[in-house]
Parts: sequence; structure tokens; C-alpha cells
Amino acid sequence: MRISAYFTVGEVTPGALTDATVVVIDVVRATTSIVEALANGARGIYPTVSTEEAVKLAHSLGRDDTLLCGERKGQKVEGFDLGNSPGDFTREAVEGKRLVMSTTNGTSAFGLAHESARVLACAFTNLSAVASAVEGVEDLVVLCAGKEGHFSMGDALCAGHLISLVLADRTEEHTLNDAAIAARALAARKPSKRLLGQTAGGRALIEVGLEADLEICADVDRHGLVAELIDQAITVAGG
Amino acid sequence: MRISAYFTVGEVTPGALTDATVVVIDVVRATTSIVEALANGARGIYPTVSTEEAVKLAHSLGRDDTLLCGERKGQKVEGFDLGNSPGDFTREAVEGKRLVMSTTNGTSAFGLAHESARVLACAFTNLSAVASAVEGVEDLVVLCAGKEGHFSMGDALCAGHLISLVLADRTEEHTLNDAAIAARALAARKPSKRLLGQTAGGRALIEVGLEADLEICADVDRHGLVAELIDQAITVAGG
Repeated sequence: MRISAYFTVGEVTPGALTDATVVVIDVVRATTSIVEALANGARGIYPTVSTEEAVKLAHSLGRDDTLLCGERKGQKVEGFDLGNSPGDFTREAVEGKRLVMSTTNGTSAFGLAHESARVLACAFTNLSAVASAVEGVEDLVVLCAGKEGHFSMGDALCAGHLISLVLADRTEEHTLNDAAIAARALAARKPSKRLLGQTAGGRALIEVGLEADLEICADVDRHGLVAELIDQAITVAGG
Repeated sequence: MRISAYFTVGEVTPGALTDATVVVIDVVRATTSIVEALANGARGIYPTVSTEEAVKLAHSLGRDDTLLCGERKGQKVEGFDLGNSPGDFTREAVEGKRLVMSTTNGTSAFGLAHESARVLACAFTNLSAVASAVEGVEDLVVLCAGKEGHFSMGDALCAGHLISLVLADRTEEHTLNDAAIAARALAARKPSKRLLGQTAGGRALIEVGLEADLEICADVDRHGLVAELIDQAITVAGG
């Protein structure tokens, strides 16, 4: 088994994701919100890079059962139905809906992985489910969305806990790149609202009054689902 | 005190280094070799980006007391006097000489820091000396050279030990960016030849028969000197 982690999307070498199983992580908050939305019955989440692309796609999908979701600088995009607070993705709001989502860091990471074997969305909230889903793959890439091109402690910590779980019971040979070695070492730290609140992503949320989001972001195994990107949409794998 | 770490030079935002005290780290091997050369009496080290620039500068400095040093793919550049093995920078080889040095990762990191207040070169071999030298600065940037644009475990580990030392006895307020938080957490691991041998940089050296270099790279506080870039040359601070 080969495990390569990337702490920023800028570090991904062309071809590095081809034919790999890619796990995208954006703890604060895109992948946490994606997992929350799917757990609450959303039909699928369509990650887009720009807000313009999101609006266009929402119209082509049909606005009746499609919600526009996303943030810029942490706050809901004007005219959108939902922001990027995991707590907003309630059953009442999202059940049966398609969600077109554009966020600053997370959603664009999915765009890199179009030649991959599988693309999964991972947060602390579905950590163990993702770890089980990638059992036995030959080539695992853990892609941290980062924060505006920079290293994100929340993402790296989640990557580390995922890698630790994946390697926990394995006896066969495995190869880790430097970032995977470091992430695994970081997993000595437990995720918590407090720790996430010290990171750049967490501090930015606290500043705009969204501290409560961090409670959900740090809630390990809150859900048991695997979120998988197939074609344009992220849905529950096997669901 | 504000401490910002960068794990790759690509993550450095324009202006982030301006007026800061910048510590450049390239454990395997540029900063280790720089410290070794200065400890053995080199008059100064001139970091350059390209081998062409190195040759040109060496000629303008006068070839008689100038050595050309550097590597590409780990091995000595053809026609150069020395490669980048710290063990090559013996007193016999370098005393009284000026060294023009071009390496794949480390030397170009120095080029980014031209608007900084101070620029120091740090390796495990001069860790405590650098930690003492940056005591009490307001704005400390720890710049890891990385490996070909990627995260380097050796550099991050050295950054973490440096940050741990700097913060050890401090009681006043300090602000760390995410990478500095992570680096500090990594410092639970002790540097060793074995650990460096598991990293991409270490593995690449072992492949070309230079495993012995890692012994020096992991030798904490082998020297007590501070290496500082002033104008074009790195010399012993206060020396």
C-alpha cells in the first residue's frame, strides 16, 4: 500500500492522482458540510469552483429542487440558499434536494481528481467509514484542501487520523510520503473544538460569529457514511 | 511574538517575509552543509539559484580562493569543486575559501528573503544557537526549503524543534500559524539518522550511496554558530 498526503492542492504533481483512490479533506468546513447534508437526506452535492459556475449549474439542474450553497470569506454568498455551516444542512433544509456548492478551498480540490479511480469526501464526522472504505487499496492519496493555498492544521490532523486508522491493523509493507509520515505523527493529538479554534480556519469562523460550527467539525464519527464523487455529484456510496 | 512556518517556498505569500527575521531550513542537506562549511573556516557561502549563476559569480569573485559547490539530483554538479555532502566541507577543503553554492531546494529559499530584517540558516547541527539568536524577535518566519516543491519531514521536524526551543521559557503571548502549530507538535519526535532515512530526501541520498550524510544531518548542536545571510553571503553572525 502506498499512501501519499498533500497538505495543499498546489503541491499536487500532475498525474499524482491518476488511478489513485483520492480522499479529499476540508474539515473547516466543506467536507464536514457535505457529510452533514448527505446524512440528512440530500440527493447529491455538486462541487463547483466559482459562484458563477454554481449559479449556472443550479439553473441547468432545475432550481425547484436544487439549493445553492457556499461561502466566500466564511459567509454565505449573497443570493444563495445556504452558506457553508454544517449546522445549516438540516433534514428540513436539504432532504431530497440537490445541492450545488462553491467554497473557497474545499470544492475546488474535487476538480483535481477527475482522473482518479475513486474520489471520497472525508471529515472527522465520517472518519471511520472512510477508513474502512479505503481498506486494501494499492494507491491512496489524501488530499487536504488547505486554507487559501496554505497548510491547514485541521485538515492535516484529520489526514493523520485517517492514515492511522488505515494502517492500524496492517502488517504488510506500506510506503508513506513525507506528508503522510508527518500527518500520522500529528495524530497523537485528538481533534477538539478547542484545537480547531486555534487554527486559521477556526479563528476566521470565530471572528464572523460561527464558532458553533467547530463543534460539528470536531465530532468524530458523527455519521457512518462514505461520500463519493461520481461524475459531477457527491452521493452516499452504496446508497 | 508571532511565529509563522512555511513548509514549502510555494506557500509564501508576497510580503510575508518583509521585515521579519527569517530562518531558512534545508536539513537534507543545504543548511547542514552551510553550517559545516562555516564551522570549518569558510569565509562565506554565496547561495545561488542556478548552476550557471554559480559559475558566473565564482568567476567574478575570483576563482583562486572560491569553490563551486552544489548538486543536482543529489550528486555533485559536473565541473564543480564540491557537491553538497556536509562531510565534504572539511577544514582542509574550505578554510579561508569563499563558497558559491547551488542546490535543488535550499539555496533558492534564501533568494525569497531579500526584504527581511535578518536571514539565518538553520539545521539540526546549529539548532540551539539559532534558537538563542531569535530570542525576543517580534516576527519570526521559519521557512522550510522542502523537496522539489513538496513538504519535507526533515525540514518540518527541524522547524518544530526550533519553535519548541524558542517558546520553551516564554510566558508572554504568542501567535502561531497552522504550520507552526503542526511543526511544534511534530517535535515530539527526536531527529535521528533512521528517521531522516525514511524521508524522501533521505531515501534519495541512500539510493545514490550518500547515506553517511544523514549522520551529520541528524547531529543536533554539533556546532554553536549562527549562520547569517548579509548582502550576498552567509557568514558566521558576530564572527
